[in-house]
Amino acid sequence: MNCIFCQIASGEADANIIYRDEQLTCFLDYDPINEGHVLIVPNRHYLDADEIPDETLAAIMLLAKRIVRAIKERYSPDGYSIMQNGGLFNDVGHYHLHVFPRYKGDGFGWTIGDGKHKASPEVANVLKEMLVQGSKS
Amino acid sequence: MNCIFCQIASGEADANIIYRDEQLTCFLDYDPINEGHVLIVPNRHYLDADEIPDETLAAIMLLAKRIVRAIKERYSPDGYSIMQNGGLFNDVGHYHLHVFPRYKGDGFGWTIGDGKHKASPEVANVLKEMLVQGSKS
Repeated sequence: MNCIFCQIASGEADANIIYRDEQLTCFLDYDPINEGHVLIVPNRHYLDADEIPDETLAAIMLLAKRIVRAIKERYSPDGYSIMQNGGLFNDVGHYHLHVFPRYKGDGFGWTIGDGKHKASPEVANVLKEMLVQGSKS
Repeated sequence: MNCIFCQIASGEADANIIYRDEQLTCFLDYDPINEGHVLIVPNRHYLDADEIPDETLAAIMLLAKRIVRAIKERYSPDGYSIMQNGGLFNDVGHYHLHVFPRYKGDGFGWTIGDGKHKASPEVANVLKEMLVQGSKS
């Protein structure tokens, strides 16, 4: 397996491990946005959230909660961010949830596009319908 | 209660609702990064992930999974992003998880700071210890 996160999860590759159990591994991002920036990965190889079994995905979020508590206690940050990029925007190809402390003036922020998008009842209705269909499948 | 997300969750204020149950409300972001940008909020007022009961937090992530599936089906995007900003970086003051489709060249991205931060075993060990302490409390 050539995936670096699979290798970290199995112990084949080194990382600064914070937590590990049967389902998940949590380690420091090797290029942190701020000190204490961690990644939570499922030990099994998945790309996107919709491929991950519910139990594992819920465990990821509950571990993120514990990490938020730990970074608050350690760093007393002004806040934190949690991010996960799916599909083409996952640069490793293995699902990973970022959790990191934030500070006023830390330089982190996001850029958005042309802002021409609008929320509308039509868009909401289509997604609502998709959600109902998804529940049946 | 002056919180707009509390008002949306209770039905006092309007929004483009996609999903609602006893714990959660999901609706379109009124200023979407891309069409199909939704927010998932707990109906009760919490600021950060570490304040939210485990059951509700897990439900938020599982609803995000269903949303990812729905936006893939509806938009066939190149990917998606999930984000949640805590503390001072929550501009509403009520926990909300962003889920939105992403496209190559959509202009969304993030800026990072000076990049002087490093991952280290010392940082990992401190967080590991915090996590263990947190589990005991």
